[in-house]
Amino acid sequence: MTHDDLLKQLLAFRDARDWRQFHTLRNLIVSTTIEAGELLETIQWKTDEEIATLVADPARRKELEHECADVLMYLMLVAHTAGFDLLDAAAGKLKLNEQRYPADKAKGVATKYSQL
Amino acid sequence: MTHDDLLKQLLAFRDARDWRQFHTLRNLIVSTTIEAGELLETIQWKTDEEIATLVADPARRKELEHECADVLMYLMLVAHTAGFDLLDAAAGKLKLNEQRYPADKAKGVATKYSQL
Amino acid sequence: MTHDDLLKQLLAFRDARDWRQFHTLRNLIVSTTIEAGELLETIQWKTDEEIATLVADPARRKELEHECADVLMYLMLVAHTAGFDLLDAAAGKLKLNEQRYPADKAKGVATKYSQL
Amino acid sequence: MTHDDLLKQLLAFRDARDWRQFHTLRNLIVSTTIEAGELLETIQWKTDEEIATLVADPARRKELEHECADVLMYLMLVAHTAGFDLLDAAAGKLKLNEQRYPADKAKGVATKYSQL
Repeated sequence: MTHDDLLKQLLAFRDARDWRQFHTLRNLIVSTTIEAGELLETIQWKTDEEIATLVADPARRKELEHECADVLMYLMLVAHTAGFDLLDAAAGKLKLNEQRYPADKAKGVATKYSQL
Repeated sequence: MTHDDLLKQLLAFRDARDWRQFHTLRNLIVSTTIEAGELLETIQWKTDEEIATLVADPARRKELEHECADVLMYLMLVAHTAGFDLLDAAAGKLKLNEQRYPADKAKGVATKYSQL
Repeated sequence: MTHDDLLKQLLAFRDARDWRQFHTLRNLIVSTTIEAGELLETIQWKTDEEIATLVADPARRKELEHECADVLMYLMLVAHTAGFDLLDAAAGKLKLNEQRYPADKAKGVATKYSQL
Repeated sequence: MTHDDLLKQLLAFRDARDWRQFHTLRNLIVSTTIEAGELLETIQWKTDEEIATLVADPARRKELEHECADVLMYLMLVAHTAGFDLLDAAAGKLKLNEQRYPADKAKGVATKYSQL
C-alpha cells in the first residue's frame, strides 16, 4: 500500500457515500482531534508494563492499529481538502526541526527548541 | 517523497539526537494527541469564511501544513514503535468502514455506524 | 451543589472503589484530555443550526452535560492531587487574562494576546 | 472563591471585551479541547519522577494551575451557554457512575463499566 493509493481509496470511499458535503476543513480537523483522543484512550490507566504487552495482544493491537488508522485518514483528508501534499509537508517540517534541534545541542535531551 | 522514505528520515533524525529513549509508546501517543490539539488551534475562533481563505494565506497555510506534519510524524513513530505498517493498518480500517457504512445506507448521512 | 461538596463526593467515590492507586497526576491529566475529546464528539459533523437545537433535545443535552461533567471531575481530581484549589487557580488566571487582554484593545477582536 | 462568583467574573470579563459574539457553543467546546491538549503538554516527555517533583517547582506548578484554569473556564462557559449548571451536571453524572461502577465490583480494578 502506498500513500497515494490509500488516498485514492479514501476519496472513492467518501464519494461513494456522498460525504464530501460534510468534509469541510473545520469538520475534518475536528474529527482528527477526536480520533487522536480515542488513540489516547488505548493507553488510559495502563502501566508501562501493560503498554509494553499491549502490542503482543492481538485484540488490543488491532484496536491500536485502528485508532492510528482513523487519525491518519482524517489527516490525509485535511491535507487533500486544503490542497497540499501531506508527505511533502512532513518532509518540510522535518527539515525545520533539524534546524531547530541541532543534533549536538539536542542530543539526549527532551527540551523544546525555544528553550534549547 | 514516499511514506517509507519519510519514515527513514524520521528515524535517522531521532537516532542522531539519541531520542529513542524518550520514544515510549505512551509518550508518542501522548505527543500525537498534543499535536492534534495544536492542529485544532489553527481554526480556533475562525468563521467558515475565514477558514476558507486560510488556505490562500501563505503564512496560515504553512502553519496548517506544519501542524498536520507534526501529527503525521508522531503517528508514524507510534506505528513503527508498535511494529505495524501504518498504511496497511489504514487500508484494513478502510475495509472495515466499507462494511460498517454500506454505500446505499450511508449515502448523504453523517450518522455513526452503530446508529445506521 | 457547591464545588467543595462535589469534590468531597468525588473523593468518597474514588476511595470506596480503591481507585487512588490509579489516580497519578499523569493518568488524571491524560483522562481529562480523553474526556475533552469526547466532549468535542458531541458536535462532530453538526451544522450551526443542529448545534443550536442540540440543547433543546433532552437526550443530546444530557449527553453534553455528561461529557462536561466528566471533564470537570477529572480536572478537580488533577487539582486535588497536585494540591491546589481549582477555583482559586482560575481566579488567578482570569486576573492574568485581564492584563493580557486589556478591554480597550481586545474589544470585539478574537486575537491572541501575543499578537494584540 | 465560589463557582458562582467565578462564573460572574468570567461573564463580566467576556462582556467587557464584547466577546459573546465569538462564544458559540461550537467555539467554546473546541476551545475546551484545545486547552486540554495544552494541559497534556505539561507532562509531555516527563518521567513519573519528574511529574512527582513538578508540583514542588513553583514555575511548573503555576503552569499546571493555569492550564487547568483555562480548561475550567471554557467548560463553565460551555455550560452557561448551553443553559445548565455545571456542578449539578457533575453531581448527576457521579450518581450515574455510582450505578455503573458498584463499589464491590469495581474495587481496585480500572475496567470500563461496559466490561465490568
